[in-house]
Amino acid sequence: MTILQELAPLIQNIQTELHQSVTDDLPLSLRDPILYFLESPGKKIRPLLTLLACEAVDGEVREVMPAAVGIELFHDFTLIHDDIMDKDDMRRGRFTVHRKWGDDAAILVGDLLVGLAYKKMLECQPEYLEKVLNLFNETLIKVCEGQALDKEFEKVEHVSLDAYIDMISKKTAWLFQLSAQLGALLGGASEEQVREMAYFGYSLGIGFQIQDDWLDYAGEETALGKKVGSDLKMDKKTYVALSYAELIGQTPELAKKYPARISSFDSIPRLKEALFEIGIAAATESVIEKYISDALQTLSHIKPLEESNRLYRLVQFLRQRQS
Amino acid sequence: MTILQELAPLIQNIQTELHQSVTDDLPLSLRDPILYFLESPGKKIRPLLTLLACEAVDGEVREVMPAAVGIELFHDFTLIHDDIMDKDDMRRGRFTVHRKWGDDAAILVGDLLVGLAYKKMLECQPEYLEKVLNLFNETLIKVCEGQALDKEFEKVEHVSLDAYIDMISKKTAWLFQLSAQLGALLGGASEEQVREMAYFGYSLGIGFQIQDDWLDYAGEETALGKKVGSDLKMDKKTYVALSYAELIGQTPELAKKYPARISSFDSIPRLKEALFEIGIAAATESVIEKYISDALQTLSHIKPLEESNRLYRLVQFLRQRQS
Repeated sequence: MTILQELAPLIQNIQTELHQSVTDDLPLSLRDPILYFLESPGKKIRPLLTLLACEAVDGEVREVMPAAVGIELFHDFTLIHDDIMDKDDMRRGRFTVHRKWGDDAAILVGDLLVGLAYKKMLECQPEYLEKVLNLFNETLIKVCEGQALDKEFEKVEHVSLDAYIDMISKKTAWLFQLSAQLGALLGGASEEQVREMAYFGYSLGIGFQIQDDWLDYAGEETALGKKVGSDLKMDKKTYVALSYAELIGQTPELAKKYPARISSFDSIPRLKEALFEIGIAAATESVIEKYISDALQTLSHIKPLEESNRLYRLVQFLRQRQS
Repeated sequence: MTILQELAPLIQNIQTELHQSVTDDLPLSLRDPILYFLESPGKKIRPLLTLLACEAVDGEVREVMPAAVGIELFHDFTLIHDDIMDKDDMRRGRFTVHRKWGDDAAILVGDLLVGLAYKKMLECQPEYLEKVLNLFNETLIKVCEGQALDKEFEKVEHVSLDAYIDMISKKTAWLFQLSAQLGALLGGASEEQVREMAYFGYSLGIGFQIQDDWLDYAGEETALGKKVGSDLKMDKKTYVALSYAELIGQTPELAKKYPARISSFDSIPRLKEALFEIGIAAATESVIEKYISDALQTLSHIKPLEESNRLYRLVQFLRQRQS
């Protein structure tokens, strides 16, 4: 049985809880877009991290469900607002909320989702509440900072790889960190385990994001509906784009043959070919590998990396994804 | 000494705390617009309600400052996002954030303000934290609902006065309620006093909003920069617009002389004249009076309505404002 098949009942539980958090008394102009958005088949990676982190420390998975659902609602808020800013029309194979209901509705739907996310977080066990809410809110702030940096980067010529890693640490890794950390914390783990689980999530998040960047150029066009090359269109400063520009800038022979910037390519297949030829593909793979290995090594301190460690198997699945 | 002169040091404290909540490490694309927004001279009504409610129950005003500041930051979030949705170019005599930095930046600035607001709320005394955060989050959800209803109303022909009151209770009165309620709660008031203070804030909020609607047609063009008639432009369903339409609809003689809807007037002075002639001015004034009296009567249970009750004097000041 694949890990996704095995996790199907858990994903179903998350889905049910997400729906239940959208109460009947909400105005239709908010309720309809949220239900529409929730219907689409997201991977539910972050809530799964929370639930499986809890499982890995032998906690009571049922106890951490509110946090898991709160994290997913928060993630949905970021997607809906980011889609407005990135002018993305499609998400998970369907129209984005702002494409279907307009920017104004999408702004408000996102705002409400923050409230619904907090509402779930407030259901966490009272003894952890202050800590949980502080971590959650710090993450909210960091995610906004990360998105701001991402947008700032679109307007500048040069961004260093360090600045890029700082940006994705805020935009992506903080939430991965929180997801794993809260699973351990609310699952009753020791302080050290909570710290290790946080680091696991953080490192996984960085690796995941760089892989995501990579798949945007090199992934399969899939049923999930994300168009390959959409980052290219926006001249996004991704790990791939930045390390490409750095390499060409430092290597005169390559500069004769290839454009200085990835956004000058007019064909995705040609770009993909170039990325393999000049070694960006291999370099990117090895960076992803480094972060994922780091994550897994830390996880192994908490629980052996074997069949029974479903968090480990979830990471393996993410590592192998092609979209 | 007028109440505003007397409160100037308190307003200055709020202003300082607001600035301090915008930390140096924020990306400039977020920091600059927030500091710009905070520079403009808002009335700080909501944080003053919190501080003076605390004073009215003989609490330690210093203790409730984080809640007061959190409430103002939250209010700023709603203003910045509402200005995008309402396409308002001016606020407090200056360009709105979205007009100056674009919609994307304004969305993100608003999102960050939610995080900064929560950060202040998390500084409240630990023994009240769970209660405070539940109330705060409930208000966040209600405010989103209120804004959604307000936008829904723009698209329909007929809205009942009851539906309108429900909308402004969510969009405005809930936050007024929270402001006063938290001042009492965190000031150590009895349960009954907290309940009364909540009702005071709620009723004041409704009265305040109807007065705001009224001033949008009948107020002075002021240094604060809000253009008289801006609700008219958007065909907003305000108390004035709805009771006008109701009256004309029920009175054939008036229907011969006046248009069916307020938005058909092509001149503000002519509209204003009509509102006085057919009694809408008087009716609106008396509704405002009812809500404010209700608020003050409830306040009087907590503290006598005299010179030493600065909350009472603040309400008197608000009641007399012309903009």
